[in-house]
Amino acid sequence: MSRTTVSHEEGAIYEFTPTLDPIATVEPGAELTIETRDSLDGAVQTDDDLIESVPEEVNAATGPIEVAGAEPGDVLAVEIEDVRLAEDRGRVVTIDGFGLLDGHEDIEAPRTKVTPVAEDSTPDADVVTDAVIEFGDHEIAVDPCIGTIGVAPASDSYTTLVPHDHGGNLDTTDVSAGNTIYFPVFQNGAMLAMGDSKAAMADGEMCGTGAEIATDIDVTVRVIDGDDVAVELDRPLIETPDAWKTVASAESMEEACELANLDAIDLFATEHGFGPTEAYMFSSLVGGLEISQVVDPLVTVRNAIPKTHCDGPF
Amino acid sequence: MSRTTVSHEEGAIYEFTPTLDPIATVEPGAELTIETRDSLDGAVQTDDDLIESVPEEVNAATGPIEVAGAEPGDVLAVEIEDVRLAEDRGRVVTIDGFGLLDGHEDIEAPRTKVTPVAEDSTPDADVVTDAVIEFGDHEIAVDPCIGTIGVAPASDSYTTLVPHDHGGNLDTTDVSAGNTIYFPVFQNGAMLAMGDSKAAMADGEMCGTGAEIATDIDVTVRVIDGDDVAVELDRPLIETPDAWKTVASAESMEEACELANLDAIDLFATEHGFGPTEAYMFSSLVGGLEISQVVDPLVTVRNAIPKTHCDGPF
Repeated sequence: MSRTTVSHEEGAIYEFTPTLDPIATVEPGAELTIETRDSLDGAVQTDDDLIESVPEEVNAATGPIEVAGAEPGDVLAVEIEDVRLAEDRGRVVTIDGFGLLDGHEDIEAPRTKVTPVAEDSTPDADVVTDAVIEFGDHEIAVDPCIGTIGVAPASDSYTTLVPHDHGGNLDTTDVSAGNTIYFPVFQNGAMLAMGDSKAAMADGEMCGTGAEIATDIDVTVRVIDGDDVAVELDRPLIETPDAWKTVASAESMEEACELANLDAIDLFATEHGFGPTEAYMFSSLVGGLEISQVVDPLVTVRNAIPKTHCDGPF
Repeated sequence: MSRTTVSHEEGAIYEFTPTLDPIATVEPGAELTIETRDSLDGAVQTDDDLIESVPEEVNAATGPIEVAGAEPGDVLAVEIEDVRLAEDRGRVVTIDGFGLLDGHEDIEAPRTKVTPVAEDSTPDADVVTDAVIEFGDHEIAVDPCIGTIGVAPASDSYTTLVPHDHGGNLDTTDVSAGNTIYFPVFQNGAMLAMGDSKAAMADGEMCGTGAEIATDIDVTVRVIDGDDVAVELDRPLIETPDAWKTVASAESMEEACELANLDAIDLFATEHGFGPTEAYMFSSLVGGLEISQVVDPLVTVRNAIPKTHCDGPF
């Protein structure tokens, strides 16, 4: 099967709604290259380009892509094979009204730091690619992730600034090459869209951005019949080589932790025959809670489950 | 220098106060073995032993140990060399009024699950020790950490149930063999105490406990003169082989994230000559926020900084 390219120039959304019109339709099993622009639509090219306030349109998500045959109750699997940088610079910004330390004395907003892509000046023979971004005279290893990725939601609409049960602005470092992200399908065709990639990002995304950059993303999409899923997904789930990670977004971190933990408990209870309390206790011993982002303004938390303790729901 | 043993039978505290009386005095550089009892003082030996409410005294911390010459403004370094299990079982409990999912339907409290220590039935040749705890017929690798560890605080007093700037009930998986935890010294002699170890614990400690267990802990204590510290510590700091981790406890996770991030920013700014905003942006690209515990009832968050990007303050 040849790889299909879908570009942001064909279409990109700034809102995940229940009734999205696809710009492309693909079959389950399709191999795609999805071209994305940076989250700020190219507005920042130098340190002098400042973002005065959160733009009304941000995090353009290339798509929507209809996956033929996907129906509500199914699961859409997006296997991420590669995330390649598609421009020569990323950018980190602070924006007034946004970020973990918004309003703190000493923290200035707006500020911009452009991070040029370069070759590592001290390459490591163990690493296949040695691309870095430059932050002043500091080099940071390129480790791309996809910030915004999701499907058409069940009933409400969400701008691409926020995450929720449909995905959206999850800003999760594990949404990266080598991992698979699974979404509940809420609408016929699923309506996948993604963008807002980072050349590098810390867990938490504290200042409100990673190194925002355009990328070309290789994925394979698959549809898992709802009847073949051991635990119904209410929210995204990520599979890494070593772990399953439930992903939950909510207004407070405490609430996001609760949802991510409840989803992990469901996985443990179903697979191991635990009662809920026993599964809760088990969840308190292995893997654990991780922070995706604390700024979007809904926050996102993961509950990681080592595969040694869970085969997963598929 | 011979190793000094300090046992919980000689003394243990349930409250970190500014005016602690030491049960032992050691010199800087002393090698100690600290014997701790489990956080529930042996009250739980079978699944039938239930904890109806959070005990008034919990998390007995062996000590206090006076480190001669440590003065306010210095830093106490506690190098953790080994944490050995000292009994044949751990225990996980739920307690009414405690835990991430306290009050959720389906979650029962009180409940107890005793986790016997055993040999791994499928040992891995790559792993030196193959001890496990048994959770029903599931085996969980033993990976001990110290739950409660701290020094005499500056002015307020804190029971061993809560964490704060002096340490206390940090419940942080990184407080484990091979790592060093640094504390600001607030009182003459520092007055180190520790206990509340776990045979295994998930980041988050969601149900309110790990596998609580008595341990023998080998540490070396050192005193770093305040003049030799590049960044004054306001809170604990952990050094792992690969990272520095600022550790902050607060009423909300958002607040704990802010404090941990501000401490990381201080480290970056001081070492690299960044301004605060630049350091904030840098912190949004490397390492990131991690969850220690969400239940104690102050919560604890870390900001991890890879050593590749920071040499640390000492």
